[in-house]
Amino acid sequence: MLKYKAGKGEKAMIVVGVGVGPGMLTEEGIRAIKKASAVYGAKRAIELAQEHITCEAKTIKDYKSLHLLPADAVILSTGDPMFSGLGKFAGENDTVIPGISSMQAACARTKVNLTNLCAITAHGRDFEPAKAELIQELRNGRNIFLLPEENFGSLEVAKILKELGIEAELYTCENLGYPEERIAKGSPDNPPIAETILYGLLVVQKR
Amino acid sequence: MLKYKAGKGEKAMIVVGVGVGPGMLTEEGIRAIKKASAVYGAKRAIELAQEHITCEAKTIKDYKSLHLLPADAVILSTGDPMFSGLGKFAGENDTVIPGISSMQAACARTKVNLTNLCAITAHGRDFEPAKAELIQELRNGRNIFLLPEENFGSLEVAKILKELGIEAELYTCENLGYPEERIAKGSPDNPPIAETILYGLLVVQKR
Repeated sequence: MLKYKAGKGEKAMIVVGVGVGPGMLTEEGIRAIKKASAVYGAKRAIELAQEHITCEAKTIKDYKSLHLLPADAVILSTGDPMFSGLGKFAGENDTVIPGISSMQAACARTKVNLTNLCAITAHGRDFEPAKAELIQELRNGRNIFLLPEENFGSLEVAKILKELGIEAELYTCENLGYPEERIAKGSPDNPPIAETILYGLLVVQKR
Repeated sequence: MLKYKAGKGEKAMIVVGVGVGPGMLTEEGIRAIKKASAVYGAKRAIELAQEHITCEAKTIKDYKSLHLLPADAVILSTGDPMFSGLGKFAGENDTVIPGISSMQAACARTKVNLTNLCAITAHGRDFEPAKAELIQELRNGRNIFLLPEENFGSLEVAKILKELGIEAELYTCENLGYPEERIAKGSPDNPPIAETILYGLLVVQKR
């Protein structure tokens, strides 16, 4: 049997998923943050964890230098670190503590099953591969949770659904978990429009 | 804009995801449990939430009668309620609070990305549809998180991978989050064997 946790006494980075909105930190996440000697993360991640931070919190922008941080650093990642988060920088000996992702919060609100759902990220990359993946998975009968890109969001997905002749409900999910949370529902003919750039798009096929 | 939360003053059921193991309850989950006048759930779910329960906790076995419970009941669901959990019984006015699923814990330990991952449930149903889905998604290049069935687990998946000529790493993930957590790694030629019936199987394709 292989070990997937850092050995005792060995210093390793801890990446904590703080959830996508307020109140989503887990007990083990809170424990790690309270014990930390230094906490690093994006501004929003630090805000979400603020009430539990007892040491200095430093905003980081250059995630490529994460390996230069002290070996026992606690890194905060919004959502779940393994879902388009900072978990990708974690090595074999580092610890990742899961958090509630935008996809989970979107499904909790709309009561959509997570098991037939396929996550696709267009965010931060050329959207053509994401578009190809979207079409393939829609044809496979899957529901989609898309992290959109400026030029590939609810309007473009609605157009694709119409071209494929697929009937579906579309939901734009913004500010999940925050007081200003906004979920708008629409159809391929009348797609919902997000009011902010950062949102999640849920596509639920009619069966 | 549509509302996806229960209206103020309206009594509605709250389904709380307690996570797959100890220490995974979120702040909002804990708040809901502490405020509850009655808490219902499976034995393991109640154990995971025990230290926060201040009212009577009742074990339920017949989930089909959930609608007969008091309107302001708090229902505990292991993992995430929308991931093969009790969220399927939640109506439009009910509230679902997300929790950490077995898939997230498995990915945190093995550092596998959640975004290229496809969840498939063979558990509690005839495994033929799950098998067909597995083959399709493997051919699509996706990694898989399978909730296995007695006759469809790591050995059967290893055989399918060999037939398809797909190179992959297989991980059986048991008792995630518990002191007796066990993650075993193997290959299609030498698949890991779980020691318990309830486990998650992670298939990570080599690229």
